Amino acid sequence: MAKRLVVIGGTAAGLSAASKAKRSCPELDVTVFERTCYTSYGACGLPYFVGGLVAEPEDLITLNVEQLARRGIDTHVRHEVQKIDRERKCVEVVRLTDGRVFEAPYDILVLATGAKPLVPDIQGHDLKGVHSLRTVEDGIMLRSIVRESKRAVVIGGGFIGLEVAEQLRETGLHVEVVELENRLLPMLEESNSQMVKDALESHGVVVHTGASATEILGTDGFVHGVKLANGEEISADLVLLSIGVSPETSLAAQCGLELGPKGAIKVDAHQRTSDPDIYACGDCCHSFHTLTGKPVYVPLGTTANKQGRVAGENIVGNPATSPGVLGSLVTKVFNLTVAATGLGEAQAKREGFDAVSCTIVKSDRASYYPGGIDTRMTLVFEQKGGRLLGAQALGGPTAAGRVNVLVAAIAAGMTVQQLGELDLVYSPSVAPVYDPILIAASQALKLVQ
Amino acid sequence: MAKRLVVIGGTAAGLSAASKAKRSCPELDVTVFERTCYTSYGACGLPYFVGGLVAEPEDLITLNVEQLARRGIDTHVRHEVQKIDRERKCVEVVRLTDGRVFEAPYDILVLATGAKPLVPDIQGHDLKGVHSLRTVEDGIMLRSIVRESKRAVVIGGGFIGLEVAEQLRETGLHVEVVELENRLLPMLEESNSQMVKDALESHGVVVHTGASATEILGTDGFVHGVKLANGEEISADLVLLSIGVSPETSLAAQCGLELGPKGAIKVDAHQRTSDPDIYACGDCCHSFHTLTGKPVYVPLGTTANKQGRVAGENIVGNPATSPGVLGSLVTKVFNLTVAATGLGEAQAKREGFDAVSCTIVKSDRASYYPGGIDTRMTLVFEQKGGRLLGAQALGGPTAAGRVNVLVAAIAAGMTVQQLGELDLVYSPSVAPVYDPILIAASQALKLVQ
Repeated sequence: MAKRLVVIGGTAAGLSAASKAKRSCPELDVTVFERTCYTSYGACGLPYFVGGLVAEPEDLITLNVEQLARRGIDTHVRHEVQKIDRERKCVEVVRLTDGRVFEAPYDILVLATGAKPLVPDIQGHDLKGVHSLRTVEDGIMLRSIVRESKRAVVIGGGFIGLEVAEQLRETGLHVEVVELENRLLPMLEESNSQMVKDALESHGVVVHTGASATEILGTDGFVHGVKLANGEEISADLVLLSIGVSPETSLAAQCGLELGPKGAIKVDAHQRTSDPDIYACGDCCHSFHTLTGKPVYVPLGTTANKQGRVAGENIVGNPATSPGVLGSLVTKVFNLTVAATGLGEAQAKREGFDAVSCTIVKSDRASYYPGGIDTRMTLVFEQKGGRLLGAQALGGPTAAGRVNVLVAAIAAGMTVQQLGELDLVYSPSVAPVYDPILIAASQALKLVQ
Repeated sequence: MAKRLVVIGGTAAGLSAASKAKRSCPELDVTVFERTCYTSYGACGLPYFVGGLVAEPEDLITLNVEQLARRGIDTHVRHEVQKIDRERKCVEVVRLTDGRVFEAPYDILVLATGAKPLVPDIQGHDLKGVHSLRTVEDGIMLRSIVRESKRAVVIGGGFIGLEVAEQLRETGLHVEVVELENRLLPMLEESNSQMVKDALESHGVVVHTGASATEILGTDGFVHGVKLANGEEISADLVLLSIGVSPETSLAAQCGLELGPKGAIKVDAHQRTSDPDIYACGDCCHSFHTLTGKPVYVPLGTTANKQGRVAGENIVGNPATSPGVLGSLVTKVFNLTVAATGLGEAQAKREGFDAVSCTIVKSDRASYYPGGIDTRMTLVFEQKGGRLLGAQALGGPTAAGRVNVLVAAIAAGMTVQQLGELDLVYSPSVAPVYDPILIAASQALKLVQ
């Protein structure tokens, strides 16, 4: 009889694992259970579906059930696994459409259960008009409400919160962002955070930093505002909760798998859990940081895909290893692209590095070529020797590519001196003769001992 | 008495050397002689001055004589060095404004004499309306003629030829490009060259490849057309010669310095010539290729600046070494950005590498996010082991940044497998979850043995 692979969770990580395993070993019997109505959806695209840039929910789907079937992957949506029996090697599944419960046996099990939005423990979080944004269903619901809303409050000034804030503002709503920390995107250096705040404010978004929402106010079960710790009340008919996510590990915990940092499922570099017949990948488990080697919880689509593929390889006996992560991030806040990778200076110091940083501002084209946009570039590096630890770039659309150069440089263990010697491309219409990267490297070199 | 540094040539390389040396050793007596009227001009910006995107010649100037004087650098424009006396350690200078000849003694001499345009040995190359584009004076002359011209022929389909072709077309001229090789930008893979040709043709530029200009036709001393080897005659009132440059080494040859590949001045990694008191930097000398270690002639502004700085360091006793070059290039042809670094497949094979390549096409954004532009990405790598040797990207403005990631990866000696493991940034508005770089790496990995 063919070996049976059961995958819990039918988005990025789970389907990467299923596809890779099936492609490498076509005789494998692969079954996927997905709780929502949608497989393989680009959750990162949800803010743009809410804002209307993406027309239909289906546009976010890479592979639907039929396409997966053609790959030999038997996928069941609206099916929730509610129990794992490691003794008997089977899962208990409930079909959500009619409540029927059945068992599915496995030889190998993959947990790709993802993450769930954190909900603040304050009064009013369950009022109508208060939403999180995680699933396609969330997106459909939120988009339908946006059309009838005038004033939105986004609680949480991280990447997703700001993307939704931008999109809500673009659809014409009055938008206020409430962030607990004293700045937005706290992984950025302070002056870089300020630039993000400026971009939001210049587009009419009101930003509250160092502000804590203590209550969501309602009337007759409907939200009408948010109360802050300083007593201020912001009126709103729509509240988005975007204070982060936590790994969805109830099944893992129920069956006694070991958990790691932030409660994420503990895995080794092959994505194997503490049970050798169970793998985990994606937002439900941790990854390993390239620079520290430590387990870190970095729930991102890029990582989920890569971990899924590595799980898939190992399932069929190919000993692949997950590459480390740098926590590379990018977003666009109106006309400002914000990208970061590796460690911030404060974070690097906490990890025990003798980190310093420098920030430069330089146009992304030759000074005389029209249309240049200032790029703000931060490098974080070891004071002794100058090994690169992190980078941030804010500016036009080319900021992302510039941070990607640093992703490669950091992964390769380069120093700021080596960075400054790179033979980067130059043409007046595309870059200045000294690229912002080289200017930053040259500035950084002065601080190296 | 202070040590005397004399620099011949007042643009990128020469002024980088002068500035670095003066800054590191303020008591140094620094004199620069520049033959043209302009110092420190961005020659790469000349096509955009001709096309009118750059308004004034002065916009191309980074540092003029007064600004250089404030840095303690005594700069003389319209001064041509006509002889170097290595015995007596002095140069013979002619002041071009009045023909006065004088001697200037040196302790250290820097040759930054640049390159000169190649002129084809065909009849009519000296007709009125036939131009090269190298100096600001060339640019001023060409721009004044463009206004009265209707039909232009660009002889030479390299980067500069295509930039001028684009600009002439943008100003409304009928433009034809004549290229001897069977494709444009022959350092690109064939299908990539075709994409460049398509971009030109879709904007109305007529492209002749595998075509040799055998005569420039004229009447009463004025150009009126170009005759091709196949007998075809193209009518034109403006002809740009852009078939490449050769190092300007007449002074170096006169005083008996050793020459290297392509007749460029021979230098060591410290930019020192065969005379230990004479340095050379920029387009008059060669550089060393990062991958082969061999001397190569790559006359580019980026290299010139870096070589100048290295010369400046060594002049004052700091033993700096020039980094190798990959020959990284980028340009924009209408809406197509074309970037390349390292070796092409054919070139790599000629250098003895067991090179293979692969090319993929992928949108530069998430498929569902509006405005994505297809990026065509080529990787060249060693079949055995997969070490990266070169890369090309053609597409929207982000193509340049993607090639720069490869610049870092190649400099670090990465393999296609390591490239595929990079934690590149992702957001639907900025990149697909599998960046074109990662897709190319994954495709390449299949060819690695």
